[in-house]
Amino acid sequence: MTTTAPATVDALIRHIEEASLLSSSNAILDWDQETMMPQGGIEWRARQQALLARIVHERASSIERGDLIEAVERDREAMADAQTAALVREARRDYGKATKLPSSLVEEMTRISSMAKHEWALARAASDFARFSPWLEKLVGLLRAQADCYGFAKDGERWDALADLYEPGCTARSVAAVFDPLRPRLQGLVADLMAAKTKPSGEFNDYLVPIAQQEELSRFVAERIGFDFNRGRLDRSTHPFCSGSHCNDVRLTTRYNERCVNDALGSTMHEAGHGIYEQGLPFARVGTPLGESVSLGIHESQSRMWENQVGRSRPFWSWLRGELPRAIGADSARFSLDQLYAAANVVEPGFIRVESDEATYNLHIMVRFEIERAVIGGSLEVAGIPSVWNKLYKDYLGLVVPDDRRGCLQDIHWSMGAMGYFPTYTLGNLYASQFFEAACAEMPGLLDGVARGEFTPLKAWLNSNIHAHGRRFTPSELVQRVTGKPLSPEPLMRHLEGKLRPLYGL
Amino acid sequence: MTTTAPATVDALIRHIEEASLLSSSNAILDWDQETMMPQGGIEWRARQQALLARIVHERASSIERGDLIEAVERDREAMADAQTAALVREARRDYGKATKLPSSLVEEMTRISSMAKHEWALARAASDFARFSPWLEKLVGLLRAQADCYGFAKDGERWDALADLYEPGCTARSVAAVFDPLRPRLQGLVADLMAAKTKPSGEFNDYLVPIAQQEELSRFVAERIGFDFNRGRLDRSTHPFCSGSHCNDVRLTTRYNERCVNDALGSTMHEAGHGIYEQGLPFARVGTPLGESVSLGIHESQSRMWENQVGRSRPFWSWLRGELPRAIGADSARFSLDQLYAAANVVEPGFIRVESDEATYNLHIMVRFEIERAVIGGSLEVAGIPSVWNKLYKDYLGLVVPDDRRGCLQDIHWSMGAMGYFPTYTLGNLYASQFFEAACAEMPGLLDGVARGEFTPLKAWLNSNIHAHGRRFTPSELVQRVTGKPLSPEPLMRHLEGKLRPLYGL
Repeated sequence: MTTTAPATVDALIRHIEEASLLSSSNAILDWDQETMMPQGGIEWRARQQALLARIVHERASSIERGDLIEAVERDREAMADAQTAALVREARRDYGKATKLPSSLVEEMTRISSMAKHEWALARAASDFARFSPWLEKLVGLLRAQADCYGFAKDGERWDALADLYEPGCTARSVAAVFDPLRPRLQGLVADLMAAKTKPSGEFNDYLVPIAQQEELSRFVAERIGFDFNRGRLDRSTHPFCSGSHCNDVRLTTRYNERCVNDALGSTMHEAGHGIYEQGLPFARVGTPLGESVSLGIHESQSRMWENQVGRSRPFWSWLRGELPRAIGADSARFSLDQLYAAANVVEPGFIRVESDEATYNLHIMVRFEIERAVIGGSLEVAGIPSVWNKLYKDYLGLVVPDDRRGCLQDIHWSMGAMGYFPTYTLGNLYASQFFEAACAEMPGLLDGVARGEFTPLKAWLNSNIHAHGRRFTPSELVQRVTGKPLSPEPLMRHLEGKLRPLYGL
Repeated sequence: MTTTAPATVDALIRHIEEASLLSSSNAILDWDQETMMPQGGIEWRARQQALLARIVHERASSIERGDLIEAVERDREAMADAQTAALVREARRDYGKATKLPSSLVEEMTRISSMAKHEWALARAASDFARFSPWLEKLVGLLRAQADCYGFAKDGERWDALADLYEPGCTARSVAAVFDPLRPRLQGLVADLMAAKTKPSGEFNDYLVPIAQQEELSRFVAERIGFDFNRGRLDRSTHPFCSGSHCNDVRLTTRYNERCVNDALGSTMHEAGHGIYEQGLPFARVGTPLGESVSLGIHESQSRMWENQVGRSRPFWSWLRGELPRAIGADSARFSLDQLYAAANVVEPGFIRVESDEATYNLHIMVRFEIERAVIGGSLEVAGIPSVWNKLYKDYLGLVVPDDRRGCLQDIHWSMGAMGYFPTYTLGNLYASQFFEAACAEMPGLLDGVARGEFTPLKAWLNSNIHAHGRRFTPSELVQRVTGKPLSPEPLMRHLEGKLRPLYGL
């Protein structure tokens, strides 16, 4: 990794880079399919992507790859370099993931999840969990088999092996250790807000803004907070996402709702946060683990920070209010700063996770975590999911779930065979709060700058403290290193309490 | 190729299909680079494309591929099927092209042409051929070496080996046999038109139409003539092209000039003609030679026919005139059919090939053909190109070339190492005229239908007579089969004389 890197290190890097060239090509095909491809292209596209994925997997799990990793691991001189050691640690991790599953299991998972996704969509439309249940049972069986192939610590549980795919080092116990104390505090906060006599006005959320103006505004804000349009794009899609090929070619999408400009603004800042992370990864390391993001949780912290800590803050709206008349029409000047700030922070328990506010969001995640953990652990049958789901929604959010469509069938994740994924959303919120507190402590004028539309200091801080490292540090190492502490629920609670109680007159 | 195809035929098809999946993925990356990719993505994209191209070439030139072809060739039963025999003939042809060049020569060509393209752009900007000359000399040396690797008939010449890459079976002698009698007739026609007292009005070519309206109109016309937007797209680029992945995913681009709607209309119909060919290739054969286009000349015949035989015809304008007020504003109704038809058919000799009209276009091509043939054959030094170029422009078009920028430096082709390519443009015009005459003879009401906006009969005729066959027939076989005659200059001359003389009052 240094200029005098030994030949084996170079050879390993080249080997990893080649697979990355192909997987990042596949990522462009993915993006193209979601945004550009005419519908007729679907059949051939599926074959293009399957072949590319197969070639990538063959290379990533090849004996040659294993030999190269081993050769560098044995090379004491090379391993004395911290960057090389991190590279090899992550290469070993990836090689393990790529080689531990028998290909028969991979194929069965691909086959079943492809059908299950389809069945899930039908079951959701019919609001009938029983229809999806046999498919989810098959998936759970395969996921348990996967977890056994990957392995997990003796004092851990099967769920850990799945979560580790998305958040290295994440265990059910470590998640529970954060979630358990967080839950009653969130419930208490939400209960207080709901009982408050003062309610923030959501009037701006009903303000009609033509899509073309919203698109202009979204671009303007994304660029202003630091997304580089010379190295990225912003398009439309039904479900907003951040994708692309590498740090110099990052593709965001967002969606527009004529009746709520905050929808587009929130999703654009969220995806731009992901995009700013991707663009901040070092181009010199592109294609290797040191040029990749740490984990889904850390990625989510970047999107949530721009969406919530920045985008729902009073200073942000103080700045944006001055820009609105030019961007979405002079009439928008009639909204006061109080009204704009309030509209971005209305709390209201609801059935649907993706429509929920900052305070209730994590309660949705906790329901899913508990169910996943029990199903993978074996203490809950798949058929029992709806009743547990509905009970937890009653307990955590005080809601009576009316049907499976608005209940346990609402998310696509499980139908894709993704269990162990949901907690990364809440981990993202927790990391975001903890990182943002650290940034504010290091840069006392940060929020004053936001009120003047100055976002570069925060972006630069994230670039150097988080993005530049790629996967050099594990998620928990990174949190410790950046904030001086292990992950804690306190910063998130301080963020929510400090913002929402005053807004509700408490 | 039948349902009882022997295992070897299936294995060969699968082998070819796999490489096609990768090369068509690369084609999407190409399209993306031209239309969507942020500029920062260029460096990594070049590496993605180079790797994919290398993998495709490795597979296309592999011993396994050769063995599979040979096995089918030896299988008499399989070869008794005409489709299989055609598939194997074309597979053998492709395998020969892929294996005959030593990789050192391929790499040297890639390296030199990449630099030469850059040097050409600089030389053109400076209008200084001497600056480009040493690069072109290198390229010519490599092209001659390439031609020797590919080989050519004993009674043929080196140029033939290069032309065969673009137009199978094309030789300098066969081109000259058509070009030689065509040239004086074109020159005579142009001279007569230039001397005519009546001049068609180009007024509509100066009519301002906002780009957004031109875009609507272009889409409308492309769809109406038969381009299927469920299996394709239309975007913008500096240089219009037709690209994409396969018959169900065809990507067109066009360009817009506010001051000349005929620019966009012509280039859209041209590219849509290419696109209709691509969409007409059989999906059941996708990824194999029987799902691919015959040659560049045949491809160009499809674009030129829609652009010229249809798009510059009086019946077409008779139909489109009724659509213009809705599409580009009520004021456009002030143009008479005579004016619209005339504006699409103004003839004027000029220096620049890509801006030239139907009558003079082929004279530009003839200049290039003669120079290429002489340079590759060895009778002309590269340094002598400008003086020969300028002499031929004087002789053929009556023009005194003012500088190299508007002379022999105007085209990018040679700098990319593409010699033997230019004649396919004129072959396309010749094929187009001959095919269109055959279509009109078989369907006597064809042009009356065009005047009513009915384009399906022509499209269906092209689909079944040309597109559906893929590469089953060679270009000359196809012309003979579809028109009952070998390629001849007569239909083109009848088309031009029959249209242009009356327009010029002759």
